[in-house]
Amino acid sequence: MANCLVAQSGGPTAVINATVAGVVKANQMNPYYDKVYGGLNGIEGILKERFVDLTEMTDEENLILRQTPSSALGSCRYKLKRDNVADFEKLFEILDKYDIETMFYTGGNDSMDTVAALSEYAKAHDIKGHRFVGCPKTVDNDLVITDHCPGFASAAKFISTTALQTWLDVNVYTRQEVFVLETMGRDAGWLAASACLSGIVDILVLPEEVFDTELFLAQVKKCVEEKNKCYIVVSEGVKYADGTYVAAAASKNDGFGHAQLGGAGNAVKQLILDSGVAERCKVQDLSTAQRCFATQQSLVDVNESFQLGMSAHMRSCNKEFTGKMVGLVRKDVPEYDVDFIAVDATEVCNKVKPFPSEWIKPNYQGITEEAVRFLEPLIKGSPTVLYKNGVPAYVKPYYMR
Amino acid sequence: MANCLVAQSGGPTAVINATVAGVVKANQMNPYYDKVYGGLNGIEGILKERFVDLTEMTDEENLILRQTPSSALGSCRYKLKRDNVADFEKLFEILDKYDIETMFYTGGNDSMDTVAALSEYAKAHDIKGHRFVGCPKTVDNDLVITDHCPGFASAAKFISTTALQTWLDVNVYTRQEVFVLETMGRDAGWLAASACLSGIVDILVLPEEVFDTELFLAQVKKCVEEKNKCYIVVSEGVKYADGTYVAAAASKNDGFGHAQLGGAGNAVKQLILDSGVAERCKVQDLSTAQRCFATQQSLVDVNESFQLGMSAHMRSCNKEFTGKMVGLVRKDVPEYDVDFIAVDATEVCNKVKPFPSEWIKPNYQGITEEAVRFLEPLIKGSPTVLYKNGVPAYVKPYYMR
Repeated sequence: MANCLVAQSGGPTAVINATVAGVVKANQMNPYYDKVYGGLNGIEGILKERFVDLTEMTDEENLILRQTPSSALGSCRYKLKRDNVADFEKLFEILDKYDIETMFYTGGNDSMDTVAALSEYAKAHDIKGHRFVGCPKTVDNDLVITDHCPGFASAAKFISTTALQTWLDVNVYTRQEVFVLETMGRDAGWLAASACLSGIVDILVLPEEVFDTELFLAQVKKCVEEKNKCYIVVSEGVKYADGTYVAAAASKNDGFGHAQLGGAGNAVKQLILDSGVAERCKVQDLSTAQRCFATQQSLVDVNESFQLGMSAHMRSCNKEFTGKMVGLVRKDVPEYDVDFIAVDATEVCNKVKPFPSEWIKPNYQGITEEAVRFLEPLIKGSPTVLYKNGVPAYVKPYYMR
Repeated sequence: MANCLVAQSGGPTAVINATVAGVVKANQMNPYYDKVYGGLNGIEGILKERFVDLTEMTDEENLILRQTPSSALGSCRYKLKRDNVADFEKLFEILDKYDIETMFYTGGNDSMDTVAALSEYAKAHDIKGHRFVGCPKTVDNDLVITDHCPGFASAAKFISTTALQTWLDVNVYTRQEVFVLETMGRDAGWLAASACLSGIVDILVLPEEVFDTELFLAQVKKCVEEKNKCYIVVSEGVKYADGTYVAAAASKNDGFGHAQLGGAGNAVKQLILDSGVAERCKVQDLSTAQRCFATQQSLVDVNESFQLGMSAHMRSCNKEFTGKMVGLVRKDVPEYDVDFIAVDATEVCNKVKPFPSEWIKPNYQGITEEAVRFLEPLIKGSPTVLYKNGVPAYVKPYYMR
């Protein structure tokens, strides 16, 4: 018998730990592996042999882990480059040393690329006995093939709830008010679009459409003239026709060659005030909170994330199962339900699934009914949150123990 | 028999509507008034005779009203000035016209001043048959005499929960991270201090203490050197020794002579980066969301707000009861509990209760155990939130009907 390893990468989500909890729980139900190791800080920590033993996790800890946001095992933005042979050799050496048969890696695009690269390397070098399984997670919801990504729905629920609540706040005075809510999402508009589930968004600006300052301001003007209020949602990744970000911030680099975004809300506010279409404009940038607000988890999301971890464990008992990502496919039934599927990680990595253009109404008027029908089931249900001394009960991050 | 009127003023909170629900419910249990009118947009709307009839509110609507954030009757920042005789005459004329015996007014400092002024005016002009009762609400928790203000605890719960959740996010990478959470609170540090209930705050900057740039940066440096991370909470109202706001934003005026604050977080970030004590710094300004995030209501808070409305109604059946504010006094018993009290509105208005200096640890090191013991009971418990299509179920604002 041998062991398995589970690790987390990329940006945290509100349900990313539920996948880890699922892997651990599945191994308790079917102890295929002797030990379930948790690798700390993703590939970065694995290369330094920073492991914890999760095998005997209690049911109570498993339950609290599921409601704990952000990567409890720590994360990294360290990219395993295909030409860095030293890293690959080191990694396989460590896997051998700890007798690790299967490595589960939760993450987005880049993590799926890591899963594909490790699997390809093993094949090319005829290394037997190691399998690599990807578990998707990303609030951006930009992975292809899978119906949606665990983590997205809880962020979407937080965003739509915050939109509704701040809209109620914005409307209480009789004076003119323009409000801008900025969401994450990089080059995909899924998060910003989900704000429309609140039913109150006047103007939605997605990165899938070129930002046309004139058209945008005309829409704001019209809205303010009609009702003296205007509620705007803007995605951090919106761009002008020439490809420059509206945020226009001095773009830094996150180590993966992605620009660090932020500031689209304030940029849009400045455009509005400078143009004179409104006298006042307030901005709320949801910032970090939107990807870790676990007290607003979607029950559908946290359950899917947990079950996806279990599914990954179960499938990994097949010795041919490597280089795969476990994903979700929506069943063609009246009530929302999903099946779990396995796809080649190479099919997923380095691709981006934009918010479908046919779901975007023209003139920044929001999303279609079809889009609402797709999104709405994902944010339904709220798990019972366990509290301690008035704040939510969370596991102490494993990398701090 | 006669009628009563309930109206809301000032900034919204997550539980302000529960007080209205309490007044309505009390009148259904003891129909002392023929009608319970809701005045739209506070004094501003009352002067325009904008009323709705809340008398027959269903139990279901009453329940949903309690979980609906922001002023469902609308609010105003219109200040009834004592020398504006025309406004007073107009108001009493309208009260006579609608046979309004008692007016309940929920709000902060300024609203209590309105209650006092109307009551004094009636007395000075020997006008009989009208009573004015104040119901406190403010997220800032800066009203004197009352143990605390309805609305504060839910904002405190949202803030401490967000602090805990974002802290988990901030820690996932091995790299250096400095995070700044900005809260509301004006010149009182109650909201910022409540972030410490999360147990994770490294540095707390309150408006009750002069902001000393050198001392602050030395503390950040020490913290970053010790653990490569630093979680900072800063109140919007922090000031330098000369009285200027750290936010230093072009201060606008809200109509009450209060400066419009915001931007302390970014100002502090700039200080940190310019000084070189850290390489990276992220800011989350909780902005509007912190005062309207009703899905994170404290059960204690929403119950107290509701019961305070009932208590105000019950007391108002006494024909001598005018110019009063209903407040809370903490019982001297082991388990947290409160009594409702009535105080003269004149004792409350135009005063500010700061966060007690003896509860502030030196060198921005947070709050004392005694402060935690005071604050912790307030944020306990979570009401069951009713949802509809994945987002919370809210009443449609009465000013939109």
